[in-house]
Amino acid sequence: MIDFQSDYIAGAHPQIIKQLSETNLECLPGYGTDAYCSAAKEKIKAACGCPEAEVEFLTGGTQTNAIVISTMLQDYEGVLAAKSGHISTHEAGAIEYSGHKVLELSQAGGKISAAVLKDYLSDYFADENYEHMVFPGMVYVSHPTEYGTLYSKAELEAIAGVCQDYKIPLFLDGARLGYGLMSAASDMTLADIARICDVFYIGGTKVGALCGEAVVFTKGNQPRHFMTAVKKRGALLAKGRLLGIQFDTLFTHDLYFEISRHAIGLAEELKAIFTERGYSFYLESFTNQQFIILENAQMKRLKQDVSFSFWEKLDDNHTVVRFATSWSTTAEDLEALKRIL
Amino acid sequence: MIDFQSDYIAGAHPQIIKQLSETNLECLPGYGTDAYCSAAKEKIKAACGCPEAEVEFLTGGTQTNAIVISTMLQDYEGVLAAKSGHISTHEAGAIEYSGHKVLELSQAGGKISAAVLKDYLSDYFADENYEHMVFPGMVYVSHPTEYGTLYSKAELEAIAGVCQDYKIPLFLDGARLGYGLMSAASDMTLADIARICDVFYIGGTKVGALCGEAVVFTKGNQPRHFMTAVKKRGALLAKGRLLGIQFDTLFTHDLYFEISRHAIGLAEELKAIFTERGYSFYLESFTNQQFIILENAQMKRLKQDVSFSFWEKLDDNHTVVRFATSWSTTAEDLEALKRIL
Amino acid sequence: MIDFQSDYIAGAHPQIIKQLSETNLECLPGYGTDAYCSAAKEKIKAACGCPEAEVEFLTGGTQTNAIVISTMLQDYEGVLAAKSGHISTHEAGAIEYSGHKVLELSQAGGKISAAVLKDYLSDYFADENYEHMVFPGMVYVSHPTEYGTLYSKAELEAIAGVCQDYKIPLFLDGARLGYGLMSAASDMTLADIARICDVFYIGGTKVGALCGEAVVFTKGNQPRHFMTAVKKRGALLAKGRLLGIQFDTLFTHDLYFEISRHAIGLAEELKAIFTERGYSFYLESFTNQQFIILENAQMKRLKQDVSFSFWEKLDDNHTVVRFATSWSTTAEDLEALKRIL
Amino acid sequence: MIDFQSDYIAGAHPQIIKQLSETNLECLPGYGTDAYCSAAKEKIKAACGCPEAEVEFLTGGTQTNAIVISTMLQDYEGVLAAKSGHISTHEAGAIEYSGHKVLELSQAGGKISAAVLKDYLSDYFADENYEHMVFPGMVYVSHPTEYGTLYSKAELEAIAGVCQDYKIPLFLDGARLGYGLMSAASDMTLADIARICDVFYIGGTKVGALCGEAVVFTKGNQPRHFMTAVKKRGALLAKGRLLGIQFDTLFTHDLYFEISRHAIGLAEELKAIFTERGYSFYLESFTNQQFIILENAQMKRLKQDVSFSFWEKLDDNHTVVRFATSWSTTAEDLEALKRIL
Repeated sequence: MIDFQSDYIAGAHPQIIKQLSETNLECLPGYGTDAYCSAAKEKIKAACGCPEAEVEFLTGGTQTNAIVISTMLQDYEGVLAAKSGHISTHEAGAIEYSGHKVLELSQAGGKISAAVLKDYLSDYFADENYEHMVFPGMVYVSHPTEYGTLYSKAELEAIAGVCQDYKIPLFLDGARLGYGLMSAASDMTLADIARICDVFYIGGTKVGALCGEAVVFTKGNQPRHFMTAVKKRGALLAKGRLLGIQFDTLFTHDLYFEISRHAIGLAEELKAIFTERGYSFYLESFTNQQFIILENAQMKRLKQDVSFSFWEKLDDNHTVVRFATSWSTTAEDLEALKRIL
Repeated sequence: MIDFQSDYIAGAHPQIIKQLSETNLECLPGYGTDAYCSAAKEKIKAACGCPEAEVEFLTGGTQTNAIVISTMLQDYEGVLAAKSGHISTHEAGAIEYSGHKVLELSQAGGKISAAVLKDYLSDYFADENYEHMVFPGMVYVSHPTEYGTLYSKAELEAIAGVCQDYKIPLFLDGARLGYGLMSAASDMTLADIARICDVFYIGGTKVGALCGEAVVFTKGNQPRHFMTAVKKRGALLAKGRLLGIQFDTLFTHDLYFEISRHAIGLAEELKAIFTERGYSFYLESFTNQQFIILENAQMKRLKQDVSFSFWEKLDDNHTVVRFATSWSTTAEDLEALKRIL
Repeated sequence: MIDFQSDYIAGAHPQIIKQLSETNLECLPGYGTDAYCSAAKEKIKAACGCPEAEVEFLTGGTQTNAIVISTMLQDYEGVLAAKSGHISTHEAGAIEYSGHKVLELSQAGGKISAAVLKDYLSDYFADENYEHMVFPGMVYVSHPTEYGTLYSKAELEAIAGVCQDYKIPLFLDGARLGYGLMSAASDMTLADIARICDVFYIGGTKVGALCGEAVVFTKGNQPRHFMTAVKKRGALLAKGRLLGIQFDTLFTHDLYFEISRHAIGLAEELKAIFTERGYSFYLESFTNQQFIILENAQMKRLKQDVSFSFWEKLDDNHTVVRFATSWSTTAEDLEALKRIL
Repeated sequence: MIDFQSDYIAGAHPQIIKQLSETNLECLPGYGTDAYCSAAKEKIKAACGCPEAEVEFLTGGTQTNAIVISTMLQDYEGVLAAKSGHISTHEAGAIEYSGHKVLELSQAGGKISAAVLKDYLSDYFADENYEHMVFPGMVYVSHPTEYGTLYSKAELEAIAGVCQDYKIPLFLDGARLGYGLMSAASDMTLADIARICDVFYIGGTKVGALCGEAVVFTKGNQPRHFMTAVKKRGALLAKGRLLGIQFDTLFTHDLYFEISRHAIGLAEELKAIFTERGYSFYLESFTNQQFIILENAQMKRLKQDVSFSFWEKLDDNHTVVRFATSWSTTAEDLEALKRIL
């Protein structure tokens, strides 16, 4: 069985396991106050070209979204997101659990546009009854999106421009940020992301860590007493080293970028294999997630040898499925796939 | 200035003021345990033809929606509603404040359909990842809807049928229920509503009371220790008599229906006046709210003499506005309107 | 049956009923934007000697406590209160429902002291792990307290001084404020309260209104978009006039103070009656609530003719009960009580 | 510098690191559905002698407390705990964040008693106004407690008996459960805990894991759709294997008990060293946490060579400090301590 189910099927990049092992017996202070956390933060700030950034580590994506959003919003505000955004659909109501509404925007290929955003905001404030509605208090985008698509620098800057006009922060969910930055279709660097966004996170769980996301507040805007807010939400690890050591490793010798590039390279090959075999794609993705349309019987057959994930029903006879590559995908996996198709 | 701004521009029906005045010095126990509350509950149960119903009084519509929904949902559930539903749009995030998501359904004229609902539910449970999403745990409809439209008995029964198939309750927001039941276009009685829905409320605030909504649980399904949950949400009145006396009055000699009928009669006249004058309607409403399309300059002119409310921008030159009648609207108001138009 | 059960057994002061009746057919805008609300706010600001105050009307005490506390606290903060405080004990968890902890302080006769408060705060910040604990973000006092006792001006100023040292606001729950201000034992005016506290409320429900509390923010510190936060908590009345008219009446010709004085006068008489008859008091109260110790058999006997409320079990044979006077108590009530005792 | 700061100063037990390393490249399904999670659950059920138990893995202690409590309580309920309980003091308001109150009970040495509990419950239900208060809906105990003390089997059974009388579940926080079970002063086995409690957790973070707690529902009482509730609270790990592999290792060849016994043995030695040197203990602990009273100057001196933690100020000249042993403490650490004292 070859496995393209997701980008979190394997453990951690071996370099991380090695580092966890080598530092294992060191006695370190708890709750993220250890030297590995500090070093990792410095390396991330350097990689972002943003010395004034504040960096915090959390465990997973949904947790990170809920904490960033609920600590940055005012009581009367909600967060704007694509109708297909992760926070709108696949987080079991985590944002609402914090008492805030997700205000849904129409999307194309998982992306919102500055135009749609601007219309929403100007209509909102033009409404005589706007005080009876949830204030739009933040914009959430995922990059890559849930469909593997990417914002261009111009698109993201346009969205950021609207946010600035309305004085609301732009938050970028980078659960798969490495795979976005290393895509051939990307025209943005990590420093661009840091410059354009008010807050974003660098996903670890899906890019080689056992767990962990690094939140970067770029504008001196980290909520006060953030650690207490994290604890209040049950998200503070006693052994914060688990996150610090992993991110320290990922941001040493550009490991984060290297393993992302590896996955992207293999995703391009996978795309080529499916294209050659005449398969249709649900949309064109330049990142590590590829969405392929399968006839249902074909899907059933394929499932016997390959692991991939259900995405959505297209029609009664066809299904959209997702193939994902990651740091752990190998050239052999692709060879085996070729033989099966 | 004649006023069609809303159905809550005046105080209470004079009969209510009279009754509040006459009972004013009686010493009564607090928190809804007085004899007027009990009498009102019995009268409402009788009017519903539902002796097994449980009735509770709350103060306003948003409060009632939030309390009913948050006490009936399980932790992992959200509530399904039309994208245009009051809870989706105009309650400042009150449902989300209780930790639950509003799951939006497409609508037509403010109404959802059994077909749209069924599709949502079957797609939801067909999704392999449904446990990562918010469970649909209740269906919310407003009747009349926010657009003044009505469900037919067949439509509501079809929706209830889907709810029963999926074992989730159907909740009807009756903030303007009287105006729905007394509409010529309605084919449902209060007893029909009670039979078809699992829980609903009879709006007082917009139908002649100073404040107050009567929640009716029809299937032995009132949440346990409901009074404590109401108190926890800051919604328990010390002088529960204020609600009991009002509903006792409204359900004595059919006052609730009589004043609703009065408003509907005048709404029909108002509709006729606008039709005669050649105005366009945004949609056809048979209840006390009429949605008229005005050219913007015309709207500005009209505003000098008549009070009505902004509904939504139609295009750059036209606006949808709402004219509402109520128990307090008079024939003279319509005469005056005729003169102005 | 004579009734000393509580100070909310009757409806509203007749002057309020009269005013509700006389204004009943006026067409007014909703949600607290009407002229009566404005007038009432101005009169309250004048009575407080605090022209810069911001005044908002809410429906009941628990609701007011929950809204003021949850909109003024930061995410990581809780509210300090006496262990016997209303928010600590009798609000069904309304503060916790908003996500905030009530941090309990020891009390005497329902009162906290500046010394106890200061110790708590200095110990808190001296703790090396304070970031793992709930930050003390506000101080709540009730005046009169739940035991009918009063803070002296010096005591309240001392508490306010500690609050200022630690930069946290002082919130005074004035559900029975009138009965406190008119007590012979009080050395504070309404203007003193406004000067000393950062926010407080003037109780209406227990001082002659059908419902309603007037929140006064005294230091330009009303939370932004307060109306939206109120709506989000289900507490915004469509017919805000109900509150505006009542408070306008209460603050016209000093009615609020006059009816409070009436109740206090009768409470002093009631106290004298019990004292003469040799009854013991649980503590000495100078306000409208008197706490009397009854032998259990005696309590049972008395209950046949008089209505009063259970307070707490003192020991196996004795119970503390509460007798309350209010604007609606009459000299005849006391005569009848005398005959019975 | 020798380190007795806490029981989470080192990484994981080497056997865990080895197992994480060896399984690292295996492709496994996510979200706790992998074979290691299943195996770990079976081993834990066997160790508990409770084949009908349901086991779930979470990341840390505060998270576990908040999730267990908030998913098991009804809306109108709170949780009873010692005033010194972890949930009462050191979780930054995590329980309140879920909308529930912690109802504090008096304690001795960190323990509550059946008698205190029974009094609370009988007083609560005897109060005529109990519906205005938070219902006691669960009892929380920590074992060992925050002071390192232990419940005897008879004490825990008595508490459980009261819980059964009032039909509320007993929840045991076992963040340091291993150190409790292996104490010479303990007369309970893991099977006893499972039999007596309705739900409890086996702490991993403080007993040799990098992170992780295993919740055990012992009476067929796991909340429905628990995984969705966990996700909603941001606590669902994509790579659930991280927890499964760790607990699988801890419950293979009794590693969990063995490393606990090691720590307890060294704690006894540490206790002996301090006793010999004439130090006073704040209370007698038979587990891995020892609370020693230091004169402040002495504390300052000691801090130069040894790491330990501040517990609480005893008086102006003395401080209570905590020394903790764990699986990672060595005989050499104790030798070094001896030399310093």
